Amino acid sequence: MENKDLRSLYKNISPLDHRYYLANRELFEKLSLYLSEEATVKYLLQVEEALVLTHLSIKGLLTPELEKTVKEATKKVDPSDVYLEEEKTQHNIRALVNVYMRYLPEDIRPYVHLGATSVDIMDTAAALRYRDVTREVLLPLLIEVEERLIEIAEKEAETAQVGRTHGQHAVPITFGFAIAEYVSRLGKSIKKISELVSDLRGKFAGAVGAYNATSVLVKDPIELEKKIMDRLALLPSDHSTQLVEPEHLLRLLLEYNIAFGIIANLADDLRHLQRTEIGEVREYFSSTQVGSSTMPHKRNPWNSEHVKSLWKAFAPRVMTFFTDQISEHQRDLSNSASGRFITDYLAGFAAACARMNKILKGLSVERDRMQANLTMGGDFVLAEAAYILLARSGIWEGHEIIRKLTLESEKTGKRLVELLKEDKELWSKLARALAETTGDNPELFFSEPWRYRGKATDKAISLANLYKKEMQNIKESL
Amino acid sequence: MENKDLRSLYKNISPLDHRYYLANRELFEKLSLYLSEEATVKYLLQVEEALVLTHLSIKGLLTPELEKTVKEATKKVDPSDVYLEEEKTQHNIRALVNVYMRYLPEDIRPYVHLGATSVDIMDTAAALRYRDVTREVLLPLLIEVEERLIEIAEKEAETAQVGRTHGQHAVPITFGFAIAEYVSRLGKSIKKISELVSDLRGKFAGAVGAYNATSVLVKDPIELEKKIMDRLALLPSDHSTQLVEPEHLLRLLLEYNIAFGIIANLADDLRHLQRTEIGEVREYFSSTQVGSSTMPHKRNPWNSEHVKSLWKAFAPRVMTFFTDQISEHQRDLSNSASGRFITDYLAGFAAACARMNKILKGLSVERDRMQANLTMGGDFVLAEAAYILLARSGIWEGHEIIRKLTLESEKTGKRLVELLKEDKELWSKLARALAETTGDNPELFFSEPWRYRGKATDKAISLANLYKKEMQNIKESL
Amino acid sequence: MENKDLRSLYKNISPLDHRYYLANRELFEKLSLYLSEEATVKYLLQVEEALVLTHLSIKGLLTPELEKTVKEATKKVDPSDVYLEEEKTQHNIRALVNVYMRYLPEDIRPYVHLGATSVDIMDTAAALRYRDVTREVLLPLLIEVEERLIEIAEKEAETAQVGRTHGQHAVPITFGFAIAEYVSRLGKSIKKISELVSDLRGKFAGAVGAYNATSVLVKDPIELEKKIMDRLALLPSDHSTQLVEPEHLLRLLLEYNIAFGIIANLADDLRHLQRTEIGEVREYFSSTQVGSSTMPHKRNPWNSEHVKSLWKAFAPRVMTFFTDQISEHQRDLSNSASGRFITDYLAGFAAACARMNKILKGLSVERDRMQANLTMGGDFVLAEAAYILLARSGIWEGHEIIRKLTLESEKTGKRLVELLKEDKELWSKLARALAETTGDNPELFFSEPWRYRGKATDKAISLANLYKKEMQNIKESL
Amino acid sequence: MENKDLRSLYKNISPLDHRYYLANRELFEKLSLYLSEEATVKYLLQVEEALVLTHLSIKGLLTPELEKTVKEATKKVDPSDVYLEEEKTQHNIRALVNVYMRYLPEDIRPYVHLGATSVDIMDTAAALRYRDVTREVLLPLLIEVEERLIEIAEKEAETAQVGRTHGQHAVPITFGFAIAEYVSRLGKSIKKISELVSDLRGKFAGAVGAYNATSVLVKDPIELEKKIMDRLALLPSDHSTQLVEPEHLLRLLLEYNIAFGIIANLADDLRHLQRTEIGEVREYFSSTQVGSSTMPHKRNPWNSEHVKSLWKAFAPRVMTFFTDQISEHQRDLSNSASGRFITDYLAGFAAACARMNKILKGLSVERDRMQANLTMGGDFVLAEAAYILLARSGIWEGHEIIRKLTLESEKTGKRLVELLKEDKELWSKLARALAETTGDNPELFFSEPWRYRGKATDKAISLANLYKKEMQNIKESL
Repeated sequence: MENKDLRSLYKNISPLDHRYYLANRELFEKLSLYLSEEATVKYLLQVEEALVLTHLSIKGLLTPELEKTVKEATKKVDPSDVYLEEEKTQHNIRALVNVYMRYLPEDIRPYVHLGATSVDIMDTAAALRYRDVTREVLLPLLIEVEERLIEIAEKEAETAQVGRTHGQHAVPITFGFAIAEYVSRLGKSIKKISELVSDLRGKFAGAVGAYNATSVLVKDPIELEKKIMDRLALLPSDHSTQLVEPEHLLRLLLEYNIAFGIIANLADDLRHLQRTEIGEVREYFSSTQVGSSTMPHKRNPWNSEHVKSLWKAFAPRVMTFFTDQISEHQRDLSNSASGRFITDYLAGFAAACARMNKILKGLSVERDRMQANLTMGGDFVLAEAAYILLARSGIWEGHEIIRKLTLESEKTGKRLVELLKEDKELWSKLARALAETTGDNPELFFSEPWRYRGKATDKAISLANLYKKEMQNIKESL
Repeated sequence: MENKDLRSLYKNISPLDHRYYLANRELFEKLSLYLSEEATVKYLLQVEEALVLTHLSIKGLLTPELEKTVKEATKKVDPSDVYLEEEKTQHNIRALVNVYMRYLPEDIRPYVHLGATSVDIMDTAAALRYRDVTREVLLPLLIEVEERLIEIAEKEAETAQVGRTHGQHAVPITFGFAIAEYVSRLGKSIKKISELVSDLRGKFAGAVGAYNATSVLVKDPIELEKKIMDRLALLPSDHSTQLVEPEHLLRLLLEYNIAFGIIANLADDLRHLQRTEIGEVREYFSSTQVGSSTMPHKRNPWNSEHVKSLWKAFAPRVMTFFTDQISEHQRDLSNSASGRFITDYLAGFAAACARMNKILKGLSVERDRMQANLTMGGDFVLAEAAYILLARSGIWEGHEIIRKLTLESEKTGKRLVELLKEDKELWSKLARALAETTGDNPELFFSEPWRYRGKATDKAISLANLYKKEMQNIKESL
Repeated sequence: MENKDLRSLYKNISPLDHRYYLANRELFEKLSLYLSEEATVKYLLQVEEALVLTHLSIKGLLTPELEKTVKEATKKVDPSDVYLEEEKTQHNIRALVNVYMRYLPEDIRPYVHLGATSVDIMDTAAALRYRDVTREVLLPLLIEVEERLIEIAEKEAETAQVGRTHGQHAVPITFGFAIAEYVSRLGKSIKKISELVSDLRGKFAGAVGAYNATSVLVKDPIELEKKIMDRLALLPSDHSTQLVEPEHLLRLLLEYNIAFGIIANLADDLRHLQRTEIGEVREYFSSTQVGSSTMPHKRNPWNSEHVKSLWKAFAPRVMTFFTDQISEHQRDLSNSASGRFITDYLAGFAAACARMNKILKGLSVERDRMQANLTMGGDFVLAEAAYILLARSGIWEGHEIIRKLTLESEKTGKRLVELLKEDKELWSKLARALAETTGDNPELFFSEPWRYRGKATDKAISLANLYKKEMQNIKESL
Repeated sequence: MENKDLRSLYKNISPLDHRYYLANRELFEKLSLYLSEEATVKYLLQVEEALVLTHLSIKGLLTPELEKTVKEATKKVDPSDVYLEEEKTQHNIRALVNVYMRYLPEDIRPYVHLGATSVDIMDTAAALRYRDVTREVLLPLLIEVEERLIEIAEKEAETAQVGRTHGQHAVPITFGFAIAEYVSRLGKSIKKISELVSDLRGKFAGAVGAYNATSVLVKDPIELEKKIMDRLALLPSDHSTQLVEPEHLLRLLLEYNIAFGIIANLADDLRHLQRTEIGEVREYFSSTQVGSSTMPHKRNPWNSEHVKSLWKAFAPRVMTFFTDQISEHQRDLSNSASGRFITDYLAGFAAACARMNKILKGLSVERDRMQANLTMGGDFVLAEAAYILLARSGIWEGHEIIRKLTLESEKTGKRLVELLKEDKELWSKLARALAETTGDNPELFFSEPWRYRGKATDKAISLANLYKKEMQNIKESL
C-alpha cells in the first residue's frame, strides 16, 4: 500500500479508530479483518472468486491448477489499487473487477462478474463478513463473558447477600444466584446469535431479483445461484429484489442488541454495588492507579460506567436497522450509507464485551460487606418466613400475629426471633413447618437470616451447569 | 359497573380510544378483551384462580364441584369494585385479592394468593394476555394480510411490470413477483411470531425470584411453580428475579416490529405506485367518496399513507422495550408504567394490519398502465439481455457491441431489435443462445420486452404455494 | 351526546384513558379540554368561526349582533353529530362544516370554509390547542415543580450532604445546592417553553401553500391570512405547503422532552437517595399504606420510579416527531396518524410532572442520615482542602505531604486534622491561607468537614432567588 | 509523532475514517482540526493554558514575555506523547498535565491545573471545540446550502410546476416556490444554530461544582471561573455539578438534527422528482460516469439517496443525546463514552451538507418536463379556480355548476374552459372576478393553467431576499 494511505490515527474522527482502538489494540486488529474497508474489499473478492470458479466448473473447465491460479490472483488485489481505479470508473465494483482481472489469465477474465449485478456481490459479501466476525470474534468474546459469569455463579453460590427490590432490602439471596440471572439471560442470547448467524443469506439473482440476466445465460439460474452459495457455505435468499431479504441480518442485529442490553444491565448492577455506602463488589484497581488527583480515597466503578455508556451510544442505532428494512420497489439506495455503519455497531458492542470481561476477571467480592448489609436491618427479613410458616400450619391470622410482633420488636428492641420463642406453641408450630419443608433447624434458621434464601444456591448451580454445557456445544460448532 | 365509569369516548385522550376505536369498532372490541384495564383484571384473576386450584389439588382437597365454585367466583369480580377497593388498600393486587375472596367459600380464602408476591401474578397474567391476543387477534389478522398477498401474487404472476431501482426503470418483472417479496418476508415473520409466542413465560418464584416464601411453604417450590404454570399452559422462567426474564416478551415485540416494518414497506410501494404519473395500482374509492372538496380529480392513497404513518408512530417505541430490559438488582419499578403501554403498541399494530387488509381487498391493478410504463423507454430494457446472450455465445466484446448499437438506436430512431437483426450472424447467435436457455422464440422475445422477466413468474407461484401451506399449518396450530 | 358514545373507561386500551386518568382525574379532565377528540372538534370550529367573521368583516357585514350569532352557533356543535355526519361524507372537515352550517343563518353559510383547504383549518387548530394546553396546564404544572424545588433549595441551602461522583463520596455540598441544579436546569427549560409556545404558527394558504384559491377570491390573500390569524392571536407560517412549517411545533416538543429528561434525572437522584443503605430522603408514605404484603419494613420509592418509567415510555417518541418533519413535495399524509399521538405525549408528560409535584410536596429530608453518611469516611474529605491550602501558601509539594499524612492516618487511626496540627508551622500556614480565603476558623473548619462546601449555599440561594423572579414573570405573562 | 501512530486508513473501522474521508478529503481534514483525538488534546491544552495565564495574571506575575512563553509551550505538546504518558498514569488529564509541564519554566509549573478537577478542563474544552467547528465548518457549509437554494428559488421563481399532495397532482406552483420552502425552513434553523452556539458553557467549579477547592485557593472562586472563561470567550455554567448543565450542548445538537431533517426532506423531494416517470430534475452526471454496468439508460439519484441514508444513520442518535442528560447525583461517568461519539454525528452531518451542496450545484431543472407534467391532466387544475371565482361573484352554487361541467368535459372531451365560455353570463362574471383579484386576462388565465399559481412567485422572491440578508448577517458575525 502506498504511503498516502498511511495516516496518524490521532487524526481519525471516530473514537473507534483512535481511543478505543488504542485501548483494545489486539481486539480491534482482529475486528479490522472483518469490519475495515480492507476487509470489505477482501470479502467482495471472495464472492467474485466463487462466481468465476462456479462458471468454470459448470463449463467443465475447472482443474485443480486453475483453481489454485484463481485463488492466488484473489490474494494479490490491494484495496488501495481498487480505490485508485475507482477514481477512474466512479463505480466501486467495476473498479474491483478491473483490478482483479489484471491478476487472472486472459482466457478466464470473461467469466469475472459474468451475469452479476453489483449488489449480488455486495450483499453476499456482507453476509459472509458478518457471519465470520460473529463466529471468529463476537461469539468467542460473549462466551468468555458467559464463562466468567458461570464461574462466579458457582463460586458464590452460597455467598449470602440481601435481595433488593426498588433499591430496598427485601429477602436474602446469594451473590451466585444474582449472577446466575445473567448466566441464564446471556446464555440464551448467545444461543440465539449462534442460530441466527447460520441463517444469513446471499444472492445471485440480478438487478431486480428475478434472475433476468442469468436466465438468458444458463439453463437454470436458480441452480447457478445455489452453486455459488454452496461454495461460500451460504443459503440463497428465498426472494430477492436487488437486495437479499433484509430481515435475516436485522434479526441477528436485534439479538446483538438484546445481548448488549443484558450486559448493560449487569454493568448497572455492578456500578451500584460499588457505591460507597454499599461496597459489595470492587472493580480491580492496580496499585499504581490514581482514582482522583485530589481525592485519594476514591475508587470509581469506571469500567462498569463505560459499558453502560457504550450501550447508550449504540443501542438506539437499532432505529436505523429498522428504517433500513424499507426500500422502495426493487430497491432504493437509502440503506447504503446507513448500512455501512453496522461495522461501528459491531465494534462498539465488541468493546463493551471486552470491557465486561476485564471487569469480571478482576472483580473482588466483598463477602463481609454483603453479610453486614444483609443484617443491618436486624431480623425483619424473617417476618415473611414466619408468617408463611404459620400459614402453612393452618394459622391463617399469621400475618396479623407477625405484624404485631414486628411492632413490639421495634418498641422493645428485642429481636423478632426472641419474641417468637416466647410463645412456645407458636414456636413449635413454626419448627415443625420448617422441618417439613426445608428441614432446617429452627434455632439456626431464625438466628442466621441468610438461611432464608429459598432455592438461590440450587438455581445458581443448576444454571451454571446447564450453560457450561451449552457453551461447550456452541464452541464445538464454531 | 357503576355509572361513574361510563364516559364519553370523545373525552378520551389517546386516538386509540376514540378515532381508531370508531374506525375499527369490531376489531377494537376484540382487542379490548385482552388489552383493556378490564382485561388486565380478568387475567390477573385467571392466575389467582390457578394458584388456588393448585394449592387445593396439592392438599388433595380439589373436587370437581369445588373447582366449579372457584371458577364461578372468578367470573363474578368486577374491575370497578377492584378499583374501589384499591382506594382503600393503595395496592392493586391486595385490592384484587380482597374482592376475589368475597365470592369464595370461607375455608378456601386462606389459599388465595398464598405464597405469592404481586409480580408472580402480574408477570404471569401479562404472558397470558399477550399470548392470547397474539393467537386470537394478531396472528389471524396477519394471516389474512398474508393470504391476500398470496392471492395477488398468484393472480398477477404473469402481469408484466417494469422493475424499478432508485426509482428508475431497470428490467422487467411481474407484479405478482413484486408482491411475492412481501409474501416471503411477511410469511417468515408470521412463522417467527407463532414460535415466539409459545415461549412466553410465567413465574411463581416470589419477591426476589429465589422461592424464599414458597420454600418454607411446600417441600418443592419449583414443582409448585411448574404445576401452576401447567394449569395456564405456560412454561416457567428459567431464572426469575422479582420479574420473569424480560427477553421472552422482548423478542416477540421485536418480531412484531419487524412485521410492522414489512407492512410499512409494502404501504410505501403502494403509495408510490399510485402517483399521478405512475398510476399502476389504485386503492378502492367508493363512488360517493370525496377526494378533495376543491379538487375533484384527486384520488389519494390515504390508506397506504395511514399505514406508513402508524409505523412512524409505533416503530420507535422499541427503544422503550429495550430500555425496559434493564432493572436494577432484583428489580426496580422503572419498567412499570412504560410496560403498560405495550397495549398501545399492539393496538396500533393491529390497526395497521386491518388497514392493510382493507387496501389489499380493494386494490385495483391497472395492467394497462403497467404495460405502458414498461415500454415507455422503448426496448433499451433488452440491452442487458442482448449483451448477456452474446457473452453466452463466447462474444466477450458483446457489451461494447451493444453499447454502440444503443447509440445508433438513439441517433436513428430505429429500435434496438431492428439493428440487431440487421447483423444476421449476430442475430443467429442470439437466437441459438436464447433457445438453449429460456427456449424463447427470438422474434417474440425481442418484440415483447416483458418476456425478459427471468424467473419472476415462477418465483411468484412457488412462494405463493409455499406460504399457502405454511399459513394453513399455523392456523391449525392456533 | 348520545348513549352510544358512553363507554366504560375500563374498556379503553391506553393506560392514559383508564389507569392514569383514574390516578389524576382532575388533571386529566383539564387535559381533555385540549387534547381529547371533543377538544379537536372544538378547536377546528374556533378556526372556522374566525374565518367566517373575517370574511364578514372584510365585506363590511359584521355587526356585533351577527358576531354574537356566529359565536353562539359555534358552541352548539356536538362532536358526536360531526362523527355521524362523517359516516356520510367520509371527510372529517366537510362533516364539521355541514353540521356547523345547520346552526348559522342561511345568508352566512356561503362564507363558511370559503377559500379554505382542510389543512388550513386543521394545522391552525392544532397550533391553538397546543398553545392553550401549554399555557393553561403544562406551564402551570412545570412552574409548580420549579417552585417546590426553589423552596427546597432555600430551606436546605445549609444542609450538609456528601457530594457523590461515580456513586462514590467526593467532597461536601449541601442538599439545597444539589436541588439548585434542578432549579437552574428546569427553570431554563420552562423559559424556553414559554418562548417557543409563542412561536407556533397557523396558515390560510390553501392546498399547496401558494394561496391559489384565495388569490382569485380576494385582492390580497396574504392579508386575508393575516387577519384570520390575528383573530386567533397566531402568526402565519412564513412559508406553507399544505402544511405549516413543521419546525415550530417540533422545537416546542423537543423542549418538552428536555424538561422531561431533567425531571427524570431528578427522579433518579431521589430514587437512589432512598436506597436502604443511603436513606437521605423519603417519599411520603401514608400511615395506612402497605409497602409490601409480605415485607412490612419496605418503603419503596415508587413515585420516583414511576416518573422515570414514564420518561422511558415517552422520551423515545421524539423519533416520531423527527420523522414527521419529512413530507414529500407539497405534503404526503404520512404525518397524519403519527401526529395525532402528540396528545398522548403531552398527557404522559403532564402525568410525570404531576407525580413529581406529589413527590416534592411530601418529601422528607433525613438530615441526620446526610450528616452520618458525610462523615462515615472520617475527615479524608478534607485532604483536598489541606493540599490546596498548602499550595496557596506556596508549598508546592503539598500534595505529597498530605498523601503521606493520609497514609499515617490510616496506620495510626489518628484523624488527619490531628496530624496536621502536630506540625505547627504547617498548621499556621493553613490557618493563614484559610483566613485569607473563606475567613473560616481553622479549628472549626478542620473538625467540621461540612464547612468545606465552597459556594454551595450561596449558589443554592442565588439560583433560588433568580428563578423565583423568572417564574413570577412567566406567570404574569400567561 | 512516531511511526507506530501511522496506520493504513483502510484498516479503520468507521466509514467516516475511510470511505467518507476519501470522498470528502478536504472537508474531513478540516473537521479533523476540531473533532479528532489530536484536536481533543489541542483543546484541552487551550483550557489549561487559560488557567495558567489567569493564575499568573491574578498574582500580578503575567508579562507579555511570559504569556508568549506559555503559549509556545502549549504548541509543543504532541498527542502521542500524552498517550505514552497515559500508559504510566492511567489518567488522561494527569498525563496531559505532565507532558505540558515539560515545556514550561519550572517556576510556572505549580500553576498548571491548580485548583482544577479534570472535568473542568474537559467540559470547557468540549464547549470550545463544538463552538469552533460550528463556526468554522458547519455554519459555512449550511450557509452554502442555503445560498444555493436561494439562487434556485430566485431563478425558478416563475418556472411552472404542478403542486403535489399525496403524490397526486393538485394545483400549480412554481419550482422556485417549492425550493423556497427549504430556504425558509433551513434559514430559520441556521439562525437558531448560530444563536445556540453562542450559549455553550464552560466551568471551573471543581469536583462537585461547588467550588470547594477554589474556595480555599482564592478569595472569590466564582470570579476566578469568570476570568478563565473570559480568556476563552465562553460563559460559565449557571450551576455545575462535576459537569456543565447538559442542556446547552443538547439544544445545539437537537437543532442540528432539525437541520438534518430539513435536508433529508429536500433529498427525498429531489429523489422522487427524478423518477423515470416524472423526470423534473436531474443530478449532475459526468459524461464518463456509468449508471449501471448492464443498464446504460439509468441515471440514478444516488446523491439524494446518500443524503437520506446518512440521515437514517445519524438522526436516531438524538436518543443518545437525550439519555446523556441523566447523570446520577453530582455525576456518574455513563455519559463519557457515549459523549465521545458526538464527533461522529457532526462529521456525518457535515458529509450530508457537503453532498447536498454538490447536488444543488449540479442540479438541472427540466422545465419542459415540469410543463408537460403540469398539463397532463388537461385543465381540471382550474376547476378550483372557477368555483372560487363564481363564489366570489355571489354564485354560491358554483361548486355544483363546476362539478357538472367537469363531468361534461370528461364525456365530451371538450376542455373545461371551452364549456365555461359557452355560458356567456358565467364567463363574464368569472372575468370580472378575475379582474378584481389577480387582474389577469381571462382568456390567458384559462388557457394557461400555470397562471393559477397564487402567490407562488412572490413568496419565492420575498423569502429569497429575506434570507439573503439573514445569511449575510450571520456570515458577518462569524
